[in-house]
Amino acid sequence: MVYVGIDLGGTNIAVGVVSEAGSILAQAGAKTLAGRPYQAIIRDMAELVKRAVAKARLTLDDVKSVGIGIPGVADSDGVVFNCTNLGWANVPLRAEMQQYIRKPIFIDNDANAAALAESVAGASAGRKSSILLTLGTGVGGGIVMDGKPWTGAHGRAGEIGHMILVPDGVPCTCGKSGCVERYCSGTALIREARQACRNFPETSILQKAGGNIEKINAKLVIDAAKEGDAPALRVFNSFARYLAMTINNLIWAFDPEIVVLGGGLSYAGNFLLDAVRPLIPRHQMGAPLPIAPIVLARLGNEAGVIGAAMLGR
Amino acid sequence: MVYVGIDLGGTNIAVGVVSEAGSILAQAGAKTLAGRPYQAIIRDMAELVKRAVAKARLTLDDVKSVGIGIPGVADSDGVVFNCTNLGWANVPLRAEMQQYIRKPIFIDNDANAAALAESVAGASAGRKSSILLTLGTGVGGGIVMDGKPWTGAHGRAGEIGHMILVPDGVPCTCGKSGCVERYCSGTALIREARQACRNFPETSILQKAGGNIEKINAKLVIDAAKEGDAPALRVFNSFARYLAMTINNLIWAFDPEIVVLGGGLSYAGNFLLDAVRPLIPRHQMGAPLPIAPIVLARLGNEAGVIGAAMLGR
Repeated sequence: MVYVGIDLGGTNIAVGVVSEAGSILAQAGAKTLAGRPYQAIIRDMAELVKRAVAKARLTLDDVKSVGIGIPGVADSDGVVFNCTNLGWANVPLRAEMQQYIRKPIFIDNDANAAALAESVAGASAGRKSSILLTLGTGVGGGIVMDGKPWTGAHGRAGEIGHMILVPDGVPCTCGKSGCVERYCSGTALIREARQACRNFPETSILQKAGGNIEKINAKLVIDAAKEGDAPALRVFNSFARYLAMTINNLIWAFDPEIVVLGGGLSYAGNFLLDAVRPLIPRHQMGAPLPIAPIVLARLGNEAGVIGAAMLGR
Repeated sequence: MVYVGIDLGGTNIAVGVVSEAGSILAQAGAKTLAGRPYQAIIRDMAELVKRAVAKARLTLDDVKSVGIGIPGVADSDGVVFNCTNLGWANVPLRAEMQQYIRKPIFIDNDANAAALAESVAGASAGRKSSILLTLGTGVGGGIVMDGKPWTGAHGRAGEIGHMILVPDGVPCTCGKSGCVERYCSGTALIREARQACRNFPETSILQKAGGNIEKINAKLVIDAAKEGDAPALRVFNSFARYLAMTINNLIWAFDPEIVVLGGGLSYAGNFLLDAVRPLIPRHQMGAPLPIAPIVLARLGNEAGVIGAAMLGR
């Protein structure tokens, strides 16, 4: 038996047929074309499932379940409560999908799915508990406990980006102030890099952006920091410091077996790990403190599809 | 069958025989007299177990298991890693106790035990997931998931008092700065009240303390705030605001079914709930946000014994 995973994003739908061990056997994909009626998007998703299964030279009879990772929250009936990127509210995703595919259908947040994927076939494989932090435009999170995603009582667990890190800090899109996402995301890195360019026009960040502050992206800031540019290093180290505080907070609250860093900013690789790891206290009153190691995610973009598939395992 | 719970504190040892439903059937207690060799303390604990069981007119044959709540952390072998209040380090608690009592012995942090007690027979009864915050001299926490305490991968979960709330904030005993405990504990309330007395000597806090700033305690500050004393209200509201941020952070990370406030400061009762509840966002982009209700603990001091007993259930 195999599992099908659907990674439903605001831009793309990715579908994969996945083995018990978490390997992708065949894939299919299409543009989401968000803004269409949800019925049309879900019909496309079902078509892609059939196409991926055919590509794997299998039939739906070989499929144990279909899992869907969504950029939002669903309730236990499979109704999507709120999915800003898709413009969805109260969409009966499971019921609609079951019109096309009569299989058990599991739905979870995409960050939870990615965390599960890493715990089955990636950086946290073999660990019972883990937290994945996805550092991208925003900050997401997924929690795995006893080998299963911890979705929370209202499907909202792992929204680490909206924990408050700085009281009365930078206003957040969520309506609060000082959220983790305002300090540990690509958006935050770019904001601080722009400010650094205003204060230190000689920074190589500005050179790399062709002198255009609007062209600054996270990769460019990381590259400048790696090369030793002082303003870029200050921006990056401040980002790493806030990230270390966030990881500290998750470790003291959950005590996971391992912490995994994913998302676009994990592009920084060992440069990121080397900046963050020393900032996490590993001793207390002279005694070594047994806490989670911090590692990089391994599955990249495939985590979404693999994790969605593994929701039914 | 019944369960025995031992609440091992730095000052007192409390032992209870507890029913399946979490009711205390008989109790026994003694001073801990910390500083003695651990063997002597554990021998006393075993004696108290036998005394409590006899008081309940039962024998050890009626006891299914013995649970011990400790003010520290134990590993899966029942070795107490670090217990500052007792001066314990690497104490083989389970092995030593089994010399006297040949029953399954469960050991967990006292805050985890209290959280479990509330979830069996207290404020979070019937809820699958909950977080208990104990607001006392320090701030502790216990997490219950799927009806069981979440101890964490290294026995350290629920150390909510040492999540960082204010970057570069008040230095903490743990070596970090700005920890929750420095803003949401009785110690914090007293510190801020003393400062208020220096700035506003007319405050009724100072009157209640007989003009002696050293005599200020948390109850006195809460009483002054309840009576409408302006400096006391400012101190209390600032405390409530930091507590609300902490609860917000736990809700966005874990999404528990319910949040329970216990410990000495929960003496403030509805006055505390009324201050904290409005500060937790319950809407997002106009839509109601399904999140945990915030309630007061119900079991008081008995939570320690009941929860320790329930570790074996």
